Amino acid sequence: MDGTVRDGEVIVGDDARQRFYDSGAYGHPLGGDDLALAPVEAAHLLFRGDLDAVDGMGFEAFLSEHAGEGLGVRFLVYKDLRDRGFYLSPARWAENPGRADFVVYPRGKGPTDGEVAYRVNAVGERDSVRGDVAGSVLAVVDEESDLSYFEAEAFDPTGGTAYDPEPATGELLDDRVVVSDPPETLHDRGFYGRPLATRDGDRSGSLHLSLVEAAYLAAEGALGLVGGDIERVVERGRDVEGERFDRRLRAYRTLRDVGAAPKTGFKFGADFRVYEAVESVDELGHAEYLVRVLPPEHVFEPRDLALDVRLAGGVRKRMVFARDGGDGPGEFEWVAVSRLTP
Amino acid sequence: MDGTVRDGEVIVGDDARQRFYDSGAYGHPLGGDDLALAPVEAAHLLFRGDLDAVDGMGFEAFLSEHAGEGLGVRFLVYKDLRDRGFYLSPARWAENPGRADFVVYPRGKGPTDGEVAYRVNAVGERDSVRGDVAGSVLAVVDEESDLSYFEAEAFDPTGGTAYDPEPATGELLDDRVVVSDPPETLHDRGFYGRPLATRDGDRSGSLHLSLVEAAYLAAEGALGLVGGDIERVVERGRDVEGERFDRRLRAYRTLRDVGAAPKTGFKFGADFRVYEAVESVDELGHAEYLVRVLPPEHVFEPRDLALDVRLAGGVRKRMVFARDGGDGPGEFEWVAVSRLTP
Repeated sequence: MDGTVRDGEVIVGDDARQRFYDSGAYGHPLGGDDLALAPVEAAHLLFRGDLDAVDGMGFEAFLSEHAGEGLGVRFLVYKDLRDRGFYLSPARWAENPGRADFVVYPRGKGPTDGEVAYRVNAVGERDSVRGDVAGSVLAVVDEESDLSYFEAEAFDPTGGTAYDPEPATGELLDDRVVVSDPPETLHDRGFYGRPLATRDGDRSGSLHLSLVEAAYLAAEGALGLVGGDIERVVERGRDVEGERFDRRLRAYRTLRDVGAAPKTGFKFGADFRVYEAVESVDELGHAEYLVRVLPPEHVFEPRDLALDVRLAGGVRKRMVFARDGGDGPGEFEWVAVSRLTP
Repeated sequence: MDGTVRDGEVIVGDDARQRFYDSGAYGHPLGGDDLALAPVEAAHLLFRGDLDAVDGMGFEAFLSEHAGEGLGVRFLVYKDLRDRGFYLSPARWAENPGRADFVVYPRGKGPTDGEVAYRVNAVGERDSVRGDVAGSVLAVVDEESDLSYFEAEAFDPTGGTAYDPEPATGELLDDRVVVSDPPETLHDRGFYGRPLATRDGDRSGSLHLSLVEAAYLAAEGALGLVGGDIERVVERGRDVEGERFDRRLRAYRTLRDVGAAPKTGFKFGADFRVYEAVESVDELGHAEYLVRVLPPEHVFEPRDLALDVRLAGGVRKRMVFARDGGDGPGEFEWVAVSRLTP
């Protein structure tokens, strides 16, 4: 069976409607027996040998003809999802596709069943991903044509840490604040800072606070600075991190405000690791998730995303991104991204 | 006991030589009973309470006085290594310290035993690390004063893949090369490309080569392009990746030339994952290491390093960096970095 390109669609006649649409959920029925196929559907039918040619072109010639439109990447994603047993519609045939390239139906369901499993965007590993990704699945085709799926979901930070910091006084030393005589609860209940244990492991020594922790506690009225001016903490933060410091501080405050306990994520290459509820550091579990704080103009590069999400998965934590909305404190767009096997 | 600062050293008298040098490997003996201490040693003795004051300053005042010289970070590393049971010398007292801040002796050994366990550089998590890191240990103090150690070793890529590519012809489609009728061995023995399986899993279909693979095979005389000009592969690579493409291609060639089989490292956020020896893809083990290819001007940011090394550790692979020497093909500086618990 042959097809013909018309207005960016591939038109097939004969029994196409019955063969491809009724029994395979390909295309969009026109009047009579004619069926309109999206180029990616036509490519798949050419690849399977169910279509012989489109305007005389076989599979590879057709793909080559449409390469400039990114058909190569979309075809690989479409084929992979079909191979996994899904029916799916290209955006042009789907109801409410939003920004997705494909609407994928639950296994065993089709376009007329009113259910959606995934909204999938297909990108190459070198394509930057712009805008809001929450609620969508990113299908990345890597340079060797292999696929990785990332599911992005809106995330709502919550927590159950109930601790009102006892007041303390510290000294700004380089890029940390040292509290010589800290109230014990500050670390043991609130999980602020890190005790600089003496050689016998005694914890009665000083407590080191990060600049972010110190700036937060100062703003809460729970930390004073030897020599007075507590503003120097924020200034030092800006000196060593630039505007990233204010952004991290606002994300930190958002997390503390909901009762979560964020600590540095350095060992995981992230901004924070987050414990949702701390009652006492002696009974501390594992941090539930990692947070990377992003500037408003951030675009996701698939390779960086793969790195973050893979690492988080390897340490059994969720990977959460907090993109700065740039308009007022706490205005972050929180999104959790995980690997998906459709 | 009190000390006095003189020319950037802390001078202590009385029985200091016996107490601190003979039995603790602190400092450098002067004439008579006097002992010269590096500031970091004096800080540690103040912290322990073995020194009462230096020029009237206690531990925190002394640290604050020297904060601008990065003493805070060096002190935390020095203390941590002492706590772990090592003797160590600040560079100024050590023989051949190279670029290291500290020379650390094997447990139970000291400066006069002629053995070195580690050469350690102490940095804060916000400090960029410049120059050659091979042969040293990087001790990173994070924002909460916790420590991570990274050991960097010169790395020599080797391999045992013996396969001479059979000639093939492909077609440039977007950012990959599709070989419609590939010699079976190209993938199954040489591990080039990825077969685009048909729906029944038949592997007799086409083979997708990445641009890097295709450019390498073309240069080896083993790949021709439909329509002729094989140079278009490299041009396309430069179009989509810029100068990074040539750098990755040279690293790829270096690895292939020693008999290793590099494949895309996308799923690990790296440039390549590398199999040291492939006999047949049916008996493929796990890739032994990941490679990130770096431009000549690259400086390591500790947080990025932590991310890469942690991920590699989590998937039981070594993390290898190939820094482009920038002077001729194959001139890379290869360094493997792993987490270390001293």
